[in-house]
Amino acid sequence: MPSMDEENIIFDTIAVVGVGLIGGSLGMAAKKRSLARRVIGIGRSEQKLMRAKILGAIDDYSLDVERGAWDADLVVICTPVRMIIPVLKNMAAYIKAGAVVTDVGSTKKEVVEQASLLMREGRSFIGGHPMAGSEQAGVEAALPDLFLGATYVLTPSDNTDLAALGKMAAFVEAIGARMIEMSPETHDASAAMISHLPHAISASLLAASEDLQKDLGVVFRMAAGSFKDLTRVSSSSPELWRDICITNADAVRQAIRLFVSKLEEFDRILEAHDEQAIETFFDQAREIRRAFLRLSK
Amino acid sequence: MPSMDEENIIFDTIAVVGVGLIGGSLGMAAKKRSLARRVIGIGRSEQKLMRAKILGAIDDYSLDVERGAWDADLVVICTPVRMIIPVLKNMAAYIKAGAVVTDVGSTKKEVVEQASLLMREGRSFIGGHPMAGSEQAGVEAALPDLFLGATYVLTPSDNTDLAALGKMAAFVEAIGARMIEMSPETHDASAAMISHLPHAISASLLAASEDLQKDLGVVFRMAAGSFKDLTRVSSSSPELWRDICITNADAVRQAIRLFVSKLEEFDRILEAHDEQAIETFFDQAREIRRAFLRLSK
Repeated sequence: MPSMDEENIIFDTIAVVGVGLIGGSLGMAAKKRSLARRVIGIGRSEQKLMRAKILGAIDDYSLDVERGAWDADLVVICTPVRMIIPVLKNMAAYIKAGAVVTDVGSTKKEVVEQASLLMREGRSFIGGHPMAGSEQAGVEAALPDLFLGATYVLTPSDNTDLAALGKMAAFVEAIGARMIEMSPETHDASAAMISHLPHAISASLLAASEDLQKDLGVVFRMAAGSFKDLTRVSSSSPELWRDICITNADAVRQAIRLFVSKLEEFDRILEAHDEQAIETFFDQAREIRRAFLRLSK
Repeated sequence: MPSMDEENIIFDTIAVVGVGLIGGSLGMAAKKRSLARRVIGIGRSEQKLMRAKILGAIDDYSLDVERGAWDADLVVICTPVRMIIPVLKNMAAYIKAGAVVTDVGSTKKEVVEQASLLMREGRSFIGGHPMAGSEQAGVEAALPDLFLGATYVLTPSDNTDLAALGKMAAFVEAIGARMIEMSPETHDASAAMISHLPHAISASLLAASEDLQKDLGVVFRMAAGSFKDLTRVSSSSPELWRDICITNADAVRQAIRLFVSKLEEFDRILEAHDEQAIETFFDQAREIRRAFLRLSK
């Protein structure tokens, strides 16, 4: 007997490839809100998939990408960013007509370009990037409300099917996220500035500090809150950030150039001992940060 | 009748000029541990000095720099960094023989050079920099245990009186801090890298982000934890950081050059798509951060 929740269903069957923190949370979010009749997990480790099922992230699972994709009306690829295209290559031939495929990778241009070429007629690929996460990884950390209030970027292209985009947007909003549509290029330029460049800065600051530590011996003993804040992100996985930077190299390099030009501007006013300009530089930064905190809420 | 605590006394009378967070905490720390027979606060606002007395940071106070200094065996100048030398100019003639003068400024070379010229025969200036603080300012936030476990830098010069340095070191250790002795130059180079450069980086990242925000419109809405971490320090006072950078311009500019050379190295390996080098760059950063966290404990 169909339940009242039928009316919430957006995709009959959802297949999640890679049931970790994000994939598991998407499964839980869909199930909690009855957005799908069933959620299938696809992965390589049966043990992890069983755990995901016990935790309620998926209804069932398959170790076989092709068979797992067969029934799916929505396929969400939640693998590490450089696995997205290889996964899609394996499953593309088995995706049914009318299905929507999306990913949750941190960079979009390369993925969207290559994915679009792999999709057969009547199937839509829409790049996605939920700006949610946590310090932890793995399905054990997954939460049905992980996306509540989070920004969720979708990157349709000019030939994206509008019906597919509408369903995907409805899904994003149904899990409580705030959808923003932008081009893959805009996404990558923004993400480079706001997320990838900070990792490059943090690593560079640590490398420079170590040089000075070797010279002077006392540098690290003097480090306080500001240094800790600026280098916190360097505790993340080197492999993850290698892949993100490699797949977004042009945008990251552009962000580096813009950032260095600002730092060199600061260097010039410092050389000139221009007190007013230095105060203004710090003052504007404080104002921009305030604006950012308001806009990111 | 003298109490048992007599034996703890290091300086009979301590004068604290500028009784805010640091000055107030030093007064409280000295009083709690009976390191002085009395602590006198010196400042321009009677209201603030009364408040400091009520809070137990000082025993008495004076609005008159000269008279306040008259009896002091230790004078601690806790004003903003660019007020240290003007204050010392006003009081130098009144400091008694055998007295020790110190400061708590964030930069040391300029202050120590100029202070040494102002000291009369038989009085010692020893630059100081306690690496303690809090988000809050003012004597209301002062704590007698603010310095427990904190690094406290002393920057004696070649002609610093050893007896004076010994008493100052004993005082620093008695308030629970961990004393490190280094030259003013070493202090300033280290502080530039670990504290002043991070502020310049944060402000430059905000300026670059704002440029991109104006172009693309969506940048700030995508910002997550890493951007928040890297820009947190830009909430600090622009005037404070202007003064710190101005009084340490050469060292800050050198730190900028070293940092930019590292970021440009990253840019080169990114341009070359050198996966191994990129992973190593992030991997080493993670290792350096671990080493820093161990050393800064």
